[in-house]
Amino acid sequence: MGQGTKWMHYLKQLSAANVPAALIEKGQNRVIDASLTLIRERAKLKGELLRSLGGVKASTSLLGVPLGHNSSFLQGPAFAPPRIREAIWCGSTNSTTEEGKELNDPRVLTDVGDVPIQEIRDCGIDDDRLMNIVSESVKLVMEEDPLRPLVLGGDHSISFPVVRAVSETLGGPVDILHLDAHPDIYDAFEGNIYSHASSFARIMEGDYARRLLQVGIRSITREGREQGKRFGVEQYEMRTFSRDRHILENLKLGEGVKGVYISVDLDCLDPAFAPGVSHIEPGGLSFRDVLNILHNLQADIVAADVVEFNPQRDTVDGMTAMVAAKLVRELTAKISR
Amino acid sequence: MGQGTKWMHYLKQLSAANVPAALIEKGQNRVIDASLTLIRERAKLKGELLRSLGGVKASTSLLGVPLGHNSSFLQGPAFAPPRIREAIWCGSTNSTTEEGKELNDPRVLTDVGDVPIQEIRDCGIDDDRLMNIVSESVKLVMEEDPLRPLVLGGDHSISFPVVRAVSETLGGPVDILHLDAHPDIYDAFEGNIYSHASSFARIMEGDYARRLLQVGIRSITREGREQGKRFGVEQYEMRTFSRDRHILENLKLGEGVKGVYISVDLDCLDPAFAPGVSHIEPGGLSFRDVLNILHNLQADIVAADVVEFNPQRDTVDGMTAMVAAKLVRELTAKISR
Amino acid sequence: MGQGTKWMHYLKQLSAANVPAALIEKGQNRVIDASLTLIRERAKLKGELLRSLGGVKASTSLLGVPLGHNSSFLQGPAFAPPRIREAIWCGSTNSTTEEGKELNDPRVLTDVGDVPIQEIRDCGIDDDRLMNIVSESVKLVMEEDPLRPLVLGGDHSISFPVVRAVSETLGGPVDILHLDAHPDIYDAFEGNIYSHASSFARIMEGDYARRLLQVGIRSITREGREQGKRFGVEQYEMRTFSRDRHILENLKLGEGVKGVYISVDLDCLDPAFAPGVSHIEPGGLSFRDVLNILHNLQADIVAADVVEFNPQRDTVDGMTAMVAAKLVRELTAKISR
Amino acid sequence: MGQGTKWMHYLKQLSAANVPAALIEKGQNRVIDASLTLIRERAKLKGELLRSLGGVKASTSLLGVPLGHNSSFLQGPAFAPPRIREAIWCGSTNSTTEEGKELNDPRVLTDVGDVPIQEIRDCGIDDDRLMNIVSESVKLVMEEDPLRPLVLGGDHSISFPVVRAVSETLGGPVDILHLDAHPDIYDAFEGNIYSHASSFARIMEGDYARRLLQVGIRSITREGREQGKRFGVEQYEMRTFSRDRHILENLKLGEGVKGVYISVDLDCLDPAFAPGVSHIEPGGLSFRDVLNILHNLQADIVAADVVEFNPQRDTVDGMTAMVAAKLVRELTAKISR
Amino acid sequence: MGQGTKWMHYLKQLSAANVPAALIEKGQNRVIDASLTLIRERAKLKGELLRSLGGVKASTSLLGVPLGHNSSFLQGPAFAPPRIREAIWCGSTNSTTEEGKELNDPRVLTDVGDVPIQEIRDCGIDDDRLMNIVSESVKLVMEEDPLRPLVLGGDHSISFPVVRAVSETLGGPVDILHLDAHPDIYDAFEGNIYSHASSFARIMEGDYARRLLQVGIRSITREGREQGKRFGVEQYEMRTFSRDRHILENLKLGEGVKGVYISVDLDCLDPAFAPGVSHIEPGGLSFRDVLNILHNLQADIVAADVVEFNPQRDTVDGMTAMVAAKLVRELTAKISR
Amino acid sequence: MGQGTKWMHYLKQLSAANVPAALIEKGQNRVIDASLTLIRERAKLKGELLRSLGGVKASTSLLGVPLGHNSSFLQGPAFAPPRIREAIWCGSTNSTTEEGKELNDPRVLTDVGDVPIQEIRDCGIDDDRLMNIVSESVKLVMEEDPLRPLVLGGDHSISFPVVRAVSETLGGPVDILHLDAHPDIYDAFEGNIYSHASSFARIMEGDYARRLLQVGIRSITREGREQGKRFGVEQYEMRTFSRDRHILENLKLGEGVKGVYISVDLDCLDPAFAPGVSHIEPGGLSFRDVLNILHNLQADIVAADVVEFNPQRDTVDGMTAMVAAKLVRELTAKISR
Repeated sequence: MGQGTKWMHYLKQLSAANVPAALIEKGQNRVIDASLTLIRERAKLKGELLRSLGGVKASTSLLGVPLGHNSSFLQGPAFAPPRIREAIWCGSTNSTTEEGKELNDPRVLTDVGDVPIQEIRDCGIDDDRLMNIVSESVKLVMEEDPLRPLVLGGDHSISFPVVRAVSETLGGPVDILHLDAHPDIYDAFEGNIYSHASSFARIMEGDYARRLLQVGIRSITREGREQGKRFGVEQYEMRTFSRDRHILENLKLGEGVKGVYISVDLDCLDPAFAPGVSHIEPGGLSFRDVLNILHNLQADIVAADVVEFNPQRDTVDGMTAMVAAKLVRELTAKISR
Repeated sequence: MGQGTKWMHYLKQLSAANVPAALIEKGQNRVIDASLTLIRERAKLKGELLRSLGGVKASTSLLGVPLGHNSSFLQGPAFAPPRIREAIWCGSTNSTTEEGKELNDPRVLTDVGDVPIQEIRDCGIDDDRLMNIVSESVKLVMEEDPLRPLVLGGDHSISFPVVRAVSETLGGPVDILHLDAHPDIYDAFEGNIYSHASSFARIMEGDYARRLLQVGIRSITREGREQGKRFGVEQYEMRTFSRDRHILENLKLGEGVKGVYISVDLDCLDPAFAPGVSHIEPGGLSFRDVLNILHNLQADIVAADVVEFNPQRDTVDGMTAMVAAKLVRELTAKISR
Repeated sequence: MGQGTKWMHYLKQLSAANVPAALIEKGQNRVIDASLTLIRERAKLKGELLRSLGGVKASTSLLGVPLGHNSSFLQGPAFAPPRIREAIWCGSTNSTTEEGKELNDPRVLTDVGDVPIQEIRDCGIDDDRLMNIVSESVKLVMEEDPLRPLVLGGDHSISFPVVRAVSETLGGPVDILHLDAHPDIYDAFEGNIYSHASSFARIMEGDYARRLLQVGIRSITREGREQGKRFGVEQYEMRTFSRDRHILENLKLGEGVKGVYISVDLDCLDPAFAPGVSHIEPGGLSFRDVLNILHNLQADIVAADVVEFNPQRDTVDGMTAMVAAKLVRELTAKISR
Repeated sequence: MGQGTKWMHYLKQLSAANVPAALIEKGQNRVIDASLTLIRERAKLKGELLRSLGGVKASTSLLGVPLGHNSSFLQGPAFAPPRIREAIWCGSTNSTTEEGKELNDPRVLTDVGDVPIQEIRDCGIDDDRLMNIVSESVKLVMEEDPLRPLVLGGDHSISFPVVRAVSETLGGPVDILHLDAHPDIYDAFEGNIYSHASSFARIMEGDYARRLLQVGIRSITREGREQGKRFGVEQYEMRTFSRDRHILENLKLGEGVKGVYISVDLDCLDPAFAPGVSHIEPGGLSFRDVLNILHNLQADIVAADVVEFNPQRDTVDGMTAMVAAKLVRELTAKISR
Repeated sequence: MGQGTKWMHYLKQLSAANVPAALIEKGQNRVIDASLTLIRERAKLKGELLRSLGGVKASTSLLGVPLGHNSSFLQGPAFAPPRIREAIWCGSTNSTTEEGKELNDPRVLTDVGDVPIQEIRDCGIDDDRLMNIVSESVKLVMEEDPLRPLVLGGDHSISFPVVRAVSETLGGPVDILHLDAHPDIYDAFEGNIYSHASSFARIMEGDYARRLLQVGIRSITREGREQGKRFGVEQYEMRTFSRDRHILENLKLGEGVKGVYISVDLDCLDPAFAPGVSHIEPGGLSFRDVLNILHNLQADIVAADVVEFNPQRDTVDGMTAMVAAKLVRELTAKISR
Repeated sequence: MGQGTKWMHYLKQLSAANVPAALIEKGQNRVIDASLTLIRERAKLKGELLRSLGGVKASTSLLGVPLGHNSSFLQGPAFAPPRIREAIWCGSTNSTTEEGKELNDPRVLTDVGDVPIQEIRDCGIDDDRLMNIVSESVKLVMEEDPLRPLVLGGDHSISFPVVRAVSETLGGPVDILHLDAHPDIYDAFEGNIYSHASSFARIMEGDYARRLLQVGIRSITREGREQGKRFGVEQYEMRTFSRDRHILENLKLGEGVKGVYISVDLDCLDPAFAPGVSHIEPGGLSFRDVLNILHNLQADIVAADVVEFNPQRDTVDGMTAMVAAKLVRELTAKISR
C-alpha cells in the first residue's frame, strides 16, 4: 500500500470520526501553497542570478518530479531524481559535454530541486490536483527568464502536465520528439487516465503538440497504432530503424510553432545500454544512436524531460544512472546558449 | 564534486562577476523561509487532525533528513528516507508491530516529509545555517502536540541538531540510548566539527544530554575512550556484550530529566544483519538483540532517530531497507500511546 | 498475467466460440489421470526397490510441488524444487549429515520428482481440483511403504493439502511443529481460502492436527492471535525466544496421535541466514537455533515440508538454496531409519 | 554429482544387493510410458481445441526440455523453461508481437509443458533412451495438427533429437537456420556424442537437414571449420558480418525440402545483450540484428528451438529471460498463421 | 585449464620437440632462487628496521600465499591476499584493534608481500617443489627476528607447508587452534595428498603438532571422525557448541611445546557472516563467537593463517573481505607485543 | 590509506626514531634488484625455450603491471592481471583465436608474470623509481628475442613507462593506436604528472611516438583538445564514428618508424559491453567495432597493453574479464608469427 493510498484510507476513518472536512481541506491548501512557494523562491533565486550576470538567452534548469505511482508495473522511478543528480557530478567523468559546453558554469546549468510529490500525496491530495501542481511548478520555472526546465522523472505520466504547462506558457502547441519503446498513447490504462501509458493521448487531445514524432517504438498494440493514426503521430518503429536512420539523424523541427519539446524515456535504449528500467524490451537503440539523433537535431528546445529511470533495477555500479545523467548533460548543451 | 561544493564555486565566480552579495543572500533567506513554512504546514495539518480526533498522548511523526555530506566515507545515506518509507509500507509484511500496535492508525504514525536538504545546499547555504534549519524543523514538529519526531537519516551528523532542538524545546537535558559500532565522539573529524563522527561530542558539550549510554561499540580509538571518560559516557563494548546483556535488556532511563532520546545507527548491527551501511564492522549485535533492548526499555521516549542506512550498499532485494523500516516500526510502537 | 489466469481467459473465449464444454472437461480429466499415473509409477519404482532391499522402516522420498500462485506477494517459490535438489548434491559439500547419515544410500533418500503443477494449471484446472491432485500425489507416495514424503515447496499454501493427505492416509490427526515468521492462520487472505497465509486455518478446521506448535513468529496481527486461541495453537513468538529456548530445544511430540509433521517456512530464519525469501522479516532464528530444535526433537516424523524458498531473491552464489538443502538433509536424517 | 549419476551409482549398489534387474527395468519402462502419456494427453487437449475452433493452419505450441547435463561447462540451462514462460507473460510488456500478432489468442500460442527430464534421469534411464524420449515427445506434438513445436531448452544437445523427430515425422530433410557463437559440430566433445558441442554433427550425419546456415559464429576451431566443409555447412562468421549482413537479412529457405527449422542459441547475441549464458563470447550480434534476420526470412517454419539460456548467470532483474522470451514471441508470430 | 596444467602440456610438447630437459630445469631453478631472494630481501628490510627501532619482542608480518589450485571445488582463494590487504587499510574503519593496538605502528604490523605462486607454477614447477618454496618462504620470515608470519591464503592446503616450516624452525611441535567447518584431515582427497581437505593429515603425520583443536566443525564424514581419533584430534562440533562454549572461551594452549599456531578457515563462520567462501555450510559460528575465542585464548602465538576467502563469491560491497581483514587485525593484536 | 602512503608515514616515524636512512635505502635497493632479477629469470627461461624451438619471429609474452594508485577515481585495476589470465584459459571457450591461431602453443603465447608493484610500494619506493622499474621490466622482456610484451594493466598510467621502454629499446619512436573514451593527455591531473589522465602527454613530450591515433574519444575537455593539437594527435571522436568508420577499419601504421604500439583502454567500449571499468562513459564502441579495427590493421606490432579493467566493478559472472581476455587473445594473434 503506497503512502497516498494509505492516506485515502485515513481520510475515510477520519470523516467517520467526525473530523470536519473543512479542517482537512484548509490544511491541504496551505501545504500546496507552501510547496509552490518553495519552487517559486528557488527558481527566482536562480533567475535573478542569471539575469544579473547577463548575456544568457536560454539556460537549462533541472526540476525533479519524483512521481512513480502512475506506472503500470514498478514504482521505482520515484527514486530517480537524486540519483541522476549525483551521477551528473560523479567524479568519474569531467564537466564538459561532448561538444564542449561547460556544465560547471551556472549560465549553462542550474537546479530548482524537486516538487515534493510524496509529501503532497501523503496529505491526501488526489491526482487531478497533483498534476496541476506539476504544471504550476513548470510554469514557475519558465516565468524566470532565461530558465528552461529540464524535468527529471519520475514515470512517463509526468510528460502530460509538463507539456501542458509549456504550451500554456508559450501560448500555443509545440513539436515533440519522443524517444521510447512504447507509444504511451492508450486512451487510458487500466482505467487510469493519468497512466504513464496514456500521457501522449492527453497531450494530443489537449492540442498541446502539433507534430509528435515517436522513435524507438517496438512494443505497440493495435490500439497503439490506431491512436497513432487518429492523432496523426509519426511513429518510427525499430523494425525499420536501419531504413529510417538517415531521416532521424537529420531532423528539423519546430517551424511555425512555439518551439520543440524532447521527451526521452530511457527504455528507448536497448536494455543492454540501460538495464535500470521497469519495462525491459530488447531490440532498442544504442546510446550512440540516441546521441546522433539529438546532436543533429535542428530545433529551438524550450523544455525537455528524461523519464522512467528506475534505480531499483540498475546494476550495482549504477550504469543506468550514468546513462540518464549523460542524456541530461547532452540535452543541457542542446538547450542552453 | 557534490552539489553544495559546486555552488560554493559558483558563488566565487558570481562575486567576481559583480553579482551583488545582497541579491544572493536575500534569495537564500526566502528559500529558507519557504522551506520551513512547508515543514510547518505539514506538521500543523497532522497535528490538527490528531487533536481533532482526541485521546492521543504521544504520536510518532516521521521527519526525513536526507543529509549525507558529513560522512567520512560514503554519502549514500542522503538517499535513505524515501527507501525506508517504502519499506515501512511494503506489501510483504502487515501493518502490525510485534507487540500489536496498528501502524495504519494515524494516531500511531504520521509523516511530515523531508527537510529539502539538497535544495538548500544547492542554494549555497552553509553547514551552520543548515544545522539550524534541521533544528528548526524538529521544533516545528514538536510544537504540534501530540506529535513526536522520529527522524530518518541521513548520516549520524544529524543527531546533533535534532537532540539540540529536542532539549531546547523541552527546556533541559535528556537521557540518550545510542546504538552504534562507533562512539561518534571525536572532537572533530578531519577538521569537520559537524562530522558524523563528532555529533555526540557536540551534544555533550551543549549539555543537551545527562546520561549517554553507547551500546554495540567495537571500533573505538584511544581518543574515543578518552572523550568517553571526559563526558562521563557509559560505553558498552561488544567485547563484553555477553556479560553486559542482562543490564542492557533491563534498562530504565529518563528519571529526573525531560525524557529519553534513542539514536540507532544501523551499523550497531553485525553487517550480516544490515549489509547496507557505509562502515562494515563485523562482530555486532543481532537484530533480535536490538529489539530485546528496545522492547524492554522503561522510558518516556520524546524523540528518536534511525541513521546511516546506505541504499547504495544494500542487497538487491533491499534487506537493509526492511531492517531500517522494522526498527522505525518498533520505535513507533514504543513512542506512541 | 500468470499462465493459469491466461487459460481461464481462453476458456471464456472458447465457450463463446462454441467449443463444447464436454470436450474440454474430458481432456482435462485425461491430463489429471496421466499426471497422477506418472507420480504413482515413480513412487512405485522407488518403493519396490526399497522393499526388495529390505530392512528399512522409514525412508525419505522427495516430492516437489512447484506452486507459487497462492502467495500474497511474490511467486518465485514455484521455481524452488529443482534448485533445492541441485544444492543437495552440490559438489561443495559431502553426502553425510551432521549426525552421520549417508544420503547417497537409497535406503535413506529417494526422489519421486515434481507434481506438474504449471502444466495442470495451464489446462484450466482450478485450485479446488489442484489441491486434490497435491493430496492425491502425497497419498500415492505414502502408499509405497516404507516411503515417507518430504515435500519441497512451493509457497506455504501446499501444507494444507499435504497434511490433509497425511492425516487421511494415517486415519487420524498428527502433531505439527511449524517453524515460521508468520502464523499463516488467517481465515482467508484477500478472499483466497487457499492463500499461503491461511493454510493452517484449513488444517485446524479439518481436524488434521491435534497440537500445532508455531515457532519463530514475529509478524502477527490481532486476527492471527485470535485464530491461534480459537484453534488452541501453541504460539512461540520471537519476542520471548530466549526465555522459551529451553522448552523448544527439548520437545517431545506425537504421543497419542498418528505421528508428527514438520513444516519449515524458510522465513523462520532471520533474513541474514536466508535472504532468498519473499517476506523479509528481521529478528528471526539463526540456522543453528533451527537445527538445535530439530536435532533434539523426540518424535516419529511421518512427513515434512520445506517451503517458501524464493530463488529469484537469493544471493548470486545461492546461499539460501544451500540453507534449504541443508534443512532437507537434516530432516531426511531425522525421518529415515 | 548430478542426480542421474547418483542413480547409476545406486543401480550398481542395488545389483550387488541382488535386486533383480528385471524389477528395475520394468519400473523404468512404466515411468517412460507414463511420461509420454502425459505429453500425449496435453498435446491432444490443445490440438482438439484448435481443431474445434477451426481455421488455423499452423499454431505454435511450447514444449520445454529442461536438460542441461550435456553441457561442457555449466548445467544451468536445465532451469530455463519455467523462467522463459514467466517472462513471456511478464506484466512489464503487452501480449502483442512487433508485427501485431496477439499471443493471448490460443490459435497463436499454446503450451504442452515440459518433458520430465530430471525425473526420468533420476530413474536411471541413460542418454540413448532419454534422447529417444525427447524425439518421441516432439512427434506427439506434431501429430496433433495444427500444432508446431517451439522447443524451450535446455542446452544445445536437445536440437539433435528434436530435428530428428521433425525430419522423421515430415519424411525428409529440412533446411536449418542456426544462430550461435559456436558451430556445435565437433565429432564428439570429451567423448560425449550427445554433447551440446556435437548436436549438428549428429544432425548432418543423419541426413535430417539439407542446408545448414550458421550465423553469429566467432568461436571456432580448426576441427569446427573442417567439419563444416565436410558437411557442406554455410558458416557465416562474425568477422565478416558487416559484409554478409545484406545476404542474411534477405534469406529465403526451405524450397524443395519439407520445411525450415530455426535453432537459436542465445549466445549468438553479444553478451551485452544476453549476459545469462554459459559461454560468454564477446563480439556477437545485437538483438535487433537477430530480429532483422528472422523478420525478413522467407520460409515455412515447421519447428524451432531457443536454447542455452542459463538463469544462474542472468542479471538480477532477469534481462536475459526477457530476451529469450521475446525471441520465443517473435518466432511464434513467424510460425503461427 | 589452469596455467600450471597448461605448462605441463607445454613441457610434453617441448620435450617431443627436442628441447633439452637440462635447459628447462636450469631455468626453473634460477626462477625459484630469484623468488626466494625477493622474499628474503623484503623480510630482511622489515626485520632490520624493527631491530633498529628496538624493544619489540614479537611483530606480525603478513605473507601472502595466493594458491588456489588444491581446492576441491573453486579456485577463487588464489585472488584473496591483495583484497584482504586493501580491506585492512580501507578508509571505512580506523587503525585501532578492539583492545587498542595501533596497526599503523610498524612495530605491530609489517608486510613481506606475496610468494609468486602463479608465476612459479607457470614455469612448470610441480606441487612438491611448490610446497617446499612456501615452507622456505615462511622460514625466511621467521629468521628475521622479531617477525612472526601471519599468512594470507590461498586455500587451506597451504597450512601444511606453513606449519611444517614453523615447527622445523622452532625445533619441535606446536599446539594448533583450528577454526573450520571441516576437519580437513582426509588421508587424500581425490588422490591429491596436498588437497585443502588433507592438510591436517599431513601435519599430524609429520608430528608438527602435539594438540590439535578443531572448532566449528559441521561437515564431517565417517573418515573425518576416524582420522580425528587416529591422530588424537580434539574435535568440537557445532552440534554441541552451546554446551562447549564455556570451554572454548577459556582456552589455554602451548604449554610444554614451542608455541601456538592458529589457523582460521573463513567457513568456520556461518555463511551469513562470511558469504564469500567456496563451501557454504550453514549453521556456523558468529563473528563475535570467533572473537570471543581468540580474545580469551591464553597462548604465545608463533604464527597464524587466515585462509579460504574467495573474492569471487563475496557480496558486491566486499563484506567478507572486511571480515577476513578484521580477523587479520585482531590476530595481529594477539601476536605482536 | 593505501599501503604505499602508509609506508611513507612509517618512514617519517622511523627517521624521527633515528633509524639510519642508509639502512632503509640499502634495503630498498636490494628489494628492487631482487624484483628485477625475478622478471629477468622468468623472461630468460621463456626466451631460451622459444629460441631452442626455433622458427619464431615474434612471440607474445604477458607481463602484468598491477598498479592502480595513479587513477583519479578508483584503484581496482590493481587487481586485474590475475583475473584476465584466469579468463584467458577459462573453460567456457576454446584456445583458438577468431582467425585460427592456437594459444596453447608456447610459440604463440607465454607469460613472464607480474611486476611486484604492491610489494615495491610497500617498501617506500616512490613513483619515479617505480616507473623506472616498470620500464626496466619491459626492457628485460624485449631483450629476450623473440618475446614481445603484451602488458596487462593496471591503470592507464603504465602506458608511459611501457612505451618509453619500447622506444628506448628499439632506438626511436613508434606509431601508437590508442583506443579510449578519454585522450589521457592532460599536462597533469590534480598535480600528478604520472596520473592515468596524463600518460600520453608524457609519451609525446618524450618523443617516444611519431603518430598518435586516438579512437573512441567521447569525454574530452578544452584542454584535451588543445593538448591534442599541440602534439599533433589524430583524435577520432565517437561523435563522428559512423563517418570515420571506413578510415579506421582500413588503417596502415608504422611506416618509417620502429613499429606500432597498441594501447587498449577497456572504456573505449560502451559500458554495455564492458561494465567493469572505473569511468562509465556511455556512447562507446561495440566489441565488434574494436575487433574490426584491430583485425584489419596493417602493422608490425612491437608491443601492446590492455588497461583499466576494474574487477571490483565487473558483473557477477565476470563478463568484462572475458572481454579483456578476448582482446588479449586477439592482440596475441596479431603480434605473434
